Amino acid sequence: MNLRSRFQKDASELAKQYTASVLFDQRLYREDIAGSIAHSKMLARQGIITEKEVELITSGLASIREEIERGEFQFNSELEDIHMNIEARLTERIGEIAGKLHTARSRNDQVALDLRMFTKEAIGETIGGIKKVQGALLYMAEANKGALMPGYTHLQRAQPILFAHHLLAYFEMLERDISRFRDCLKRTDVLPLGSGALAGVPYPVDRDFLARELGFSQISQNSLDAVSDRDFVIEYEAAASLTMMHLSRLGEELTLWSSAEFGFIDIDEAYASSSSIMPQKKNPDVAELARGKVGRIFGNLLGMLTTMKGLPLSYNRDLQEDKEGLFDSVDTLLATLRVFAGMVGTLTLNSARTSQAAGESYVLATDIADYLVKKGIPFRDAYGVVGKLVNYAIDQGKSLHEIGLDQYRRLSPLFAEDVYAITIESSVAARSVLGGTAPEQVDIQLSRARSIIEGTQ
Amino acid sequence: MNLRSRFQKDASELAKQYTASVLFDQRLYREDIAGSIAHSKMLARQGIITEKEVELITSGLASIREEIERGEFQFNSELEDIHMNIEARLTERIGEIAGKLHTARSRNDQVALDLRMFTKEAIGETIGGIKKVQGALLYMAEANKGALMPGYTHLQRAQPILFAHHLLAYFEMLERDISRFRDCLKRTDVLPLGSGALAGVPYPVDRDFLARELGFSQISQNSLDAVSDRDFVIEYEAAASLTMMHLSRLGEELTLWSSAEFGFIDIDEAYASSSSIMPQKKNPDVAELARGKVGRIFGNLLGMLTTMKGLPLSYNRDLQEDKEGLFDSVDTLLATLRVFAGMVGTLTLNSARTSQAAGESYVLATDIADYLVKKGIPFRDAYGVVGKLVNYAIDQGKSLHEIGLDQYRRLSPLFAEDVYAITIESSVAARSVLGGTAPEQVDIQLSRARSIIEGTQ
Amino acid sequence: MNLRSRFQKDASELAKQYTASVLFDQRLYREDIAGSIAHSKMLARQGIITEKEVELITSGLASIREEIERGEFQFNSELEDIHMNIEARLTERIGEIAGKLHTARSRNDQVALDLRMFTKEAIGETIGGIKKVQGALLYMAEANKGALMPGYTHLQRAQPILFAHHLLAYFEMLERDISRFRDCLKRTDVLPLGSGALAGVPYPVDRDFLARELGFSQISQNSLDAVSDRDFVIEYEAAASLTMMHLSRLGEELTLWSSAEFGFIDIDEAYASSSSIMPQKKNPDVAELARGKVGRIFGNLLGMLTTMKGLPLSYNRDLQEDKEGLFDSVDTLLATLRVFAGMVGTLTLNSARTSQAAGESYVLATDIADYLVKKGIPFRDAYGVVGKLVNYAIDQGKSLHEIGLDQYRRLSPLFAEDVYAITIESSVAARSVLGGTAPEQVDIQLSRARSIIEGTQ
Amino acid sequence: MNLRSRFQKDASELAKQYTASVLFDQRLYREDIAGSIAHSKMLARQGIITEKEVELITSGLASIREEIERGEFQFNSELEDIHMNIEARLTERIGEIAGKLHTARSRNDQVALDLRMFTKEAIGETIGGIKKVQGALLYMAEANKGALMPGYTHLQRAQPILFAHHLLAYFEMLERDISRFRDCLKRTDVLPLGSGALAGVPYPVDRDFLARELGFSQISQNSLDAVSDRDFVIEYEAAASLTMMHLSRLGEELTLWSSAEFGFIDIDEAYASSSSIMPQKKNPDVAELARGKVGRIFGNLLGMLTTMKGLPLSYNRDLQEDKEGLFDSVDTLLATLRVFAGMVGTLTLNSARTSQAAGESYVLATDIADYLVKKGIPFRDAYGVVGKLVNYAIDQGKSLHEIGLDQYRRLSPLFAEDVYAITIESSVAARSVLGGTAPEQVDIQLSRARSIIEGTQ
Repeated sequence: MNLRSRFQKDASELAKQYTASVLFDQRLYREDIAGSIAHSKMLARQGIITEKEVELITSGLASIREEIERGEFQFNSELEDIHMNIEARLTERIGEIAGKLHTARSRNDQVALDLRMFTKEAIGETIGGIKKVQGALLYMAEANKGALMPGYTHLQRAQPILFAHHLLAYFEMLERDISRFRDCLKRTDVLPLGSGALAGVPYPVDRDFLARELGFSQISQNSLDAVSDRDFVIEYEAAASLTMMHLSRLGEELTLWSSAEFGFIDIDEAYASSSSIMPQKKNPDVAELARGKVGRIFGNLLGMLTTMKGLPLSYNRDLQEDKEGLFDSVDTLLATLRVFAGMVGTLTLNSARTSQAAGESYVLATDIADYLVKKGIPFRDAYGVVGKLVNYAIDQGKSLHEIGLDQYRRLSPLFAEDVYAITIESSVAARSVLGGTAPEQVDIQLSRARSIIEGTQ
Repeated sequence: MNLRSRFQKDASELAKQYTASVLFDQRLYREDIAGSIAHSKMLARQGIITEKEVELITSGLASIREEIERGEFQFNSELEDIHMNIEARLTERIGEIAGKLHTARSRNDQVALDLRMFTKEAIGETIGGIKKVQGALLYMAEANKGALMPGYTHLQRAQPILFAHHLLAYFEMLERDISRFRDCLKRTDVLPLGSGALAGVPYPVDRDFLARELGFSQISQNSLDAVSDRDFVIEYEAAASLTMMHLSRLGEELTLWSSAEFGFIDIDEAYASSSSIMPQKKNPDVAELARGKVGRIFGNLLGMLTTMKGLPLSYNRDLQEDKEGLFDSVDTLLATLRVFAGMVGTLTLNSARTSQAAGESYVLATDIADYLVKKGIPFRDAYGVVGKLVNYAIDQGKSLHEIGLDQYRRLSPLFAEDVYAITIESSVAARSVLGGTAPEQVDIQLSRARSIIEGTQ
Repeated sequence: MNLRSRFQKDASELAKQYTASVLFDQRLYREDIAGSIAHSKMLARQGIITEKEVELITSGLASIREEIERGEFQFNSELEDIHMNIEARLTERIGEIAGKLHTARSRNDQVALDLRMFTKEAIGETIGGIKKVQGALLYMAEANKGALMPGYTHLQRAQPILFAHHLLAYFEMLERDISRFRDCLKRTDVLPLGSGALAGVPYPVDRDFLARELGFSQISQNSLDAVSDRDFVIEYEAAASLTMMHLSRLGEELTLWSSAEFGFIDIDEAYASSSSIMPQKKNPDVAELARGKVGRIFGNLLGMLTTMKGLPLSYNRDLQEDKEGLFDSVDTLLATLRVFAGMVGTLTLNSARTSQAAGESYVLATDIADYLVKKGIPFRDAYGVVGKLVNYAIDQGKSLHEIGLDQYRRLSPLFAEDVYAITIESSVAARSVLGGTAPEQVDIQLSRARSIIEGTQ
Repeated sequence: MNLRSRFQKDASELAKQYTASVLFDQRLYREDIAGSIAHSKMLARQGIITEKEVELITSGLASIREEIERGEFQFNSELEDIHMNIEARLTERIGEIAGKLHTARSRNDQVALDLRMFTKEAIGETIGGIKKVQGALLYMAEANKGALMPGYTHLQRAQPILFAHHLLAYFEMLERDISRFRDCLKRTDVLPLGSGALAGVPYPVDRDFLARELGFSQISQNSLDAVSDRDFVIEYEAAASLTMMHLSRLGEELTLWSSAEFGFIDIDEAYASSSSIMPQKKNPDVAELARGKVGRIFGNLLGMLTTMKGLPLSYNRDLQEDKEGLFDSVDTLLATLRVFAGMVGTLTLNSARTSQAAGESYVLATDIADYLVKKGIPFRDAYGVVGKLVNYAIDQGKSLHEIGLDQYRRLSPLFAEDVYAITIESSVAARSVLGGTAPEQVDIQLSRARSIIEGTQ
C-alpha cells in the first residue's frame, strides 16, 4: 500500500511532517470507520466484493475502532492521515482484502464524507448547547420577573425596563442562532461518497443505499463540487461567529454588572476567580474569557474563507486546512455554551440596586414628553419643553418629582397634577406594545419562550 | 427641532463631521419615506393623529421623495442623518405638524426598519444576479456539451471530464448560495417598528398593520433586541463572502484558462483589457478584479463582526458602522454578478485544445487500475502495478497506448488486448454514477439545472 | 491614445464600469502630476526628449493640476484611471507630444509611485495626529496630577492609582504606534519608477535623479517586485489597526467613565450628542463611534491581505483593490485622531468621585499582605491571612479601617497599630518603582512625556 | 497557596476547564523558570530575601526544569497555568519559602515577561528561517543564471525576463520581511517585570538588574500598560501574515509551474506527493498547503486584534487568548520556511521549456514600440503601430520575425532591417536599469544578495 510506488525517493522528513494530518484528523476515526463499513456493505450489495469479504472488513474495522477507543492504536505520521492509518491497520489484521475497500472510493470523497458527518453531529450538539443557555436565561428571567432596571442606550440610562425583558433579548438572539444552525444543517446533510477523486466512480455503486445507511437526506449532484466544497465548514464557522458575538455581548454585560460601579449582580463563586496577588478580588473570568474567545472564532472563519479564495477546481491540498479551525470553533463554542448555562443560571440579581438605578437620573423624561404629546402638542415641541425641564432639575440638583407644579407650568401650561403620577412603574407599564417592556408583554414573551424551550412551539 | 436643546454648546465641527451619517445613509431615503408614510397612516388609524394630518404628512413626504429623485434636495450634515434631514424638510414644508411623525417612534427603530427594508430588496436582487450567472454557465455548458477537458486535482491533470460537468460544479455552488440568501431573508424580514428607543412605545400602535403595509412577514418580539440587532447585516455579508469566494475560484480558473500555457478559452474582447505598454496583451481584467474584490467582501464581514463584539445592550452609536460595509458588499457583489453573467456567456471554448490536453499525460492510469480490479485484484495492488506502468512509460517517453501488450503482461498477467479499449471517451463514459462525468449523467444534470433556472423545480 | 487599438470591439459598459478606477484614484492627481513632471525632467536630462518638450509637458501638467483643484476637470470613466485621464487631457492641451511622457514608463510603475507618495504623506499626517492625542492626554494628566482613582483588573477595583498614571498608559501605546509608523515609512520610501511594466525600461533613465526630485531615500532593486509589491499598504493598515485598537480601548473607557454608574468624567458638550427621543441623554457618541470604527480598519487590513494571497508575479489587476481600503483607513484614522485630541483635551474629571471610588471596596488588601511580608512571612501566607480578613470585613459590612486591632491580631500576631497607616495615599506612594504609580514616578514620566512631545528626546 | 481562600466554594469543573491554560502555556516553562530565577536573585541582591533562600529557590527551579524536560512533570489543570504549576511543585520541593518568590511580582507581569521572552526567541528563529529560504532562492538563481522565461502580467506573457530575476523578486520580499521582524523585536525587547498586578510593586526592586540578567535592552515605563500590552504579539502576527502572504505567492507559482500546462519546473520527489487513486500523479502538496496555511496566519492576527478591541485597562482575562494563536503562527511559519528552503533548493528548472515560452507569443511587441520611439515618434503612436502589427501577425498565424519588412514599412516607414535584430536576448539586455532584468543588472543583484546572505552588507 505504498502510495509513492512510482517515485524513486521517499518524501523528506520535513515534507512528511508538514503534510501529515493524522495528529488532528484522527479525531474523525468514528466517522471514517462508519463510512468504510457502509461503503463495504454497499460494495457487497452491488456484487463488487463478496459477503465473506464484507464480513472480514466490517469486523476488522470494528475492532480497530475499539483499539482506538481503548487508546491502544498507534497513530503513525508516516501514514499521513486517519484514512491511511486505518487502512494500514486493517491490512495488518485481515490481509490484502483490506485493499478492496478502496474500490470505488478516493480519499477525496472519503474525507468530505467524514467531515460532513462530524459537522452534522456538531450542529446537533451546538443547538443543544444553545438551548441550555436559553433555559438558564429563561429561568433567571422568571425568577426575577418583577425586577426593574435601567434600560441603556449609549451606556447611558435611558428608560426603565424589566430585568426579565433584558434577558429575553438574549433569548431572541439565541433563537436566531438556532435557526441559522438548522439552515446550515440542510446544506451539510449531503452525501459526497461516490464522487471518487473528482469525476465520479466507474462502478455501479448505490449512492441511495449509502445515504440511507449513513443517515444523509440528500446526495451531491456534481462530483467535482462534492470533493472541493467546504461551504458547510465556513457556514458553521459563520453561524458560530454570530453566536459567540452574542455571548461576547452578554459576557460584557455580566462583567459590567458585576463591577463595583454597577453592582447589579453577583456571579456565583463557582464561576468566578480570585487574584494571585489581590485577595479581595472576585473576578468574572468566565465572562471575560468568553468575550476574548470571540477573536479565535472570527479568526477561524476568516482563515477558512482565505484558504478557499481563488482555488481552482477540484481538490487541492489547501483544503486540508479545513479541520483544525472547525474543530477549534466547535470546541470553543460548545465549552462556552456549557459554562454560560451554568454561570447564567446561578447569578444573583441585586434587584434593590437595579431598581434604585432605574429611578435615579432622569429616565422618565421621555414619558413626560409623551404626556405632553397626549395633551396635543407635537413630539418635537414636547421634547424641547422637557429638555428645559431636565436642565432646570440638574441645575437645582433635584429629581423631576421634586420640582413644583408651578415650575412645570412655567415651561408648559399643559402640565397638571397628574404629571406626578408618572413613575418608573407607570413608565414600564405604558410600553405595552408587542415586544415592549410592560409586565403583561414580558409575561407573554416568557410564556412564548417557555413554549419554545419545551418544544411546544 | 433642535435635539441639543438641553445643551449650552453646539457640537464641535470635528464631532459633527465625525458622527454625521447623511453622506452615506441618504441612500435609504426611499425606505425612510415609505416607513414614515406607513407610520403616519397607522397613527391616524389608531386615532393618535388626525386624517388631515396624515394627508399633509404623506403628501409632504411624497414631494420630498421626488425632490430627492430629481437631485434637488440639499442634504445637510448639520442634520446628522437621513431621518433628520427629511424631518427638517418636512417641517419646512408643512410646519410643526411634521413633529407628530416622531410620536411613537425613535430613530433607533426607524433606522432598523430602513436597513431591513434595504437588505430585503438587496437579497432579492442578489438572488436575481446569481441566477443570471447560473444561466450563463448553463448556456455555455449546453453549447459545449460534448467537449472534453482534463479534470484537475492539485492543478495536475487527473482524469478526463466533460467541460459541461466542470461548469455545472459552479452551478451547484451558486445554487447553495441562493439557498443561503433565502434563509437570510427569513431573518431579515422582521418588522422592528414599535420598539421605540429601546423599551417599546407608550402608544396603542398597531404593529400588524405596519407589517402588512410595509410587506413584512414577521414582527420583532423584543424591543431591546430589535433596536440593537444587526445579525441580518452580518448574515448578508457572510453569504456574500461565500458567493464571492465561489466567483474568485471561477475568476482564477478563467485567468488560468486564458493564459498562453492553458489556452483553453478566449474571453470576449468586450470583457478583456489591453495594456498601456504592451500592445499584444489581452488581459482577463474582469476575472482578476473579481478575484481581488473578494478581499473587501471578507473585510466588510470581519468589520461588522468586530464592531458588534462585546457591545452592551441596547443601541450604541457603534451600530452606525453597519451601513457602509453592507452597501459596499451589496454593490460589489451585484456588479460582479452582472459582469460575470456577461463574461461567462460570451466565452469561446477552444475544445480542440482541451480535448488534446485531456488525452495527454497519463490521465487514464486510474482507469487501468480499475480494469485490473474488475479482473479480481484489490485496488491497492492494481494501483502498484499501474504505478510501475506509468514509470515505464515516462522512461520510454511513450503514451500508455504505445506500450506493447507483452510489457503490460510483464507487470500483470491479467492484462489482455482489451486494455487498449480504455480511452478518454470510455473513461468518461464509465463514470456513470449520479453526479459523475458520464455524458448521460451530465445530461441529467443539465436538465435539472434547466428546470431550476426555469423555476419548474 | 486608444489602448484597445488591437481589439475589434469596445469593452462592454459593464466591464468598463467594473474596471474603471478613476472615481477613487482621482485622489492621487497631485502625486501623479508630480511624478510625471519629475519623469519628464529626467527624460530631458537624459536626452530622451528635448528641453522644449519638457517645458510644454510641465506647464501643461501644472495647468491640469490647477484645473482639478478648481473643480473644473471632467473625470471620465471611459479613460479608466487617473493616469489616462490626465494623459488624455494633456494631449488635448499640448498635442501628441504628450505621448512622449509614456516613454520609459508604464502604468504599473506609475501607480506604484503615486501610491507610495500618497502613503508617505499619510504616514506623516498620522504621526502628527497621534502626537496631538498624546498632547491632549499629557495636558489632562498634568492638569489632574494629584487625582486618585481605582486601578482595575477584570473591571474590578484592584489597587489605587493616579489618574495621570492611567492616561500615561495610553501615551505609551501611542508612542509605540508612532515608532511603528516610522518603521513603515522606511519600507514605503522606495522609488519604484524605472521598473516599467515589469522588467525594467530599455532607456538610459536616471533613477537617482528621480529619487532626489521626488524625495525618495531609496530605490527599488527588483523591477518585478517593484510593480507588484503592496506591502507598504498592508503595513500601514496593520499599524493603523493597532492604533485604532488602542483608541477603541480609550473609547470604551470614556464611555464607561461617563456612565451614571461610574460618573468619573464629563465629556464636553462639544463632543457629546443628545437623543432624538430622550431629552435627558448626553451620549458619548464620538467615543462609541471610534470604538465601532475599529471594525472597518481591521476589515481593510484583512481585505488587502486576502487580495494579495496567492497572486503570481508580477502585476495583476487584483492590485487595483489596494486603494479604497487604504484611503478609508487613512481618513478614518486621521478623523478619529483629530476628534479624540479635542475630546480628551476637554474632559472634566470628577476627581471627588474617582478618589472616593479608590477608597471604597478593599483595594488596600494587597498592601496589607505586603505589610505582613515585610514582617517576614512569605507572600502566599500573607495572602491567605488577608483573604480571611476581607471575608470578615464583608460579613461585618465594615471597611478594613473599621476593624479592630484585636481582630487583626486574631488572624495574625504580626499585625500592629501601624496597619492603620496603610491608606490609599500610602499605597500609591509605595509603588515607587520605575513605571509605578507613585507620584514621584508619575512626575518622572510626565517630564519624559513632555520632552517627547516637545521633541527634546 | 490556595488562591480561592476567600471563597466558600470551589470553582465548578466547567469553569476550571474553561479558564485553565496550562495545557498550552506549559510551553513557556523555560521562560517562566528563567524569569523566576532572575527575580529571586534580584530579591536577594535587594535584601528582600536571603542568599540562602535564593539558593534553595534557584536549585529547586532548576530541578523542576529538568523534570519537565525529562517528561516527568505532572501538569495539573487544577492549578490553572504554568506559573502556579511550577510554584506548587516548588513548594513541594522546598517548602513555604517558595511563597517568597511571589514577593514583588504578580502573574500579570510574570506572564507578560514569559511571553516577551518567547516572542524574542521566535523572532530570532523566524529571521533565521527566512534567511534559509533566501539562501535557497539565491542558490537556484545562481545555478540558472542565464535561463530565460516569460515575464507575466495578468498571467499573460508580457516581456522576456531572466529566471534569476524572477527568483530575486522573492528575495526582496523576504528581505523586507526580515526588516519588519527586526523592527518588531525592538518593541518586544522591553522588560515588564516590576509592574506587579497593575500599579508597580511596593518593594525596592532593581529593574535594571532584571533587564541585564534576562537580556532585555529596554524597561517598560508604565505599569498599567506593561501588564495589558500585547502589541508585540499582534505585531509578530502581522509580520508573519506578510511573510506567509509572500510564501503563498511563491507556492502558487510553484504549483502553476509544475502543472502540465506550464511544465517549467520539477519539484523534487522529496517534496512532492502521490495520489491514493491516481498512480500517475505527482502533486506539489507542500506548495499548495503553504498557500492554504496563509488562512490560519491571517486568522490568528485578526483573532488577537478582535480580542483586544475595546478592552478597558488594565489586565483582563481576555488577554489569555494571546498565546495559542501566537504559538500557531510561529510554528506554522517556521515549518513553512524550513520546508520551503528544502523545496526551493532542490527544484529542477526546465530551461528549454521556459526559454521557448519566452520566445512564443508576441512578447517583443513592447521592444518594437520602443524601437520606433527611439526613431522619434511618441510612445503612444508607436503603441498604435505595433498593435496593428500584432493583429496582422495573429491573422496570418505568423511570429513577428516571420513578417516581411515591406509589411512592417506599410505600418510605419521608420522600420528598417534592424527591426529583426530585436530578439528575446536583446530585449532582456536592453533593460539595463537598476533593478531591471538585463544580465548585468541581475549579476549586480545576485552579488548584492550574496553579500546580504553572507552578512557583509
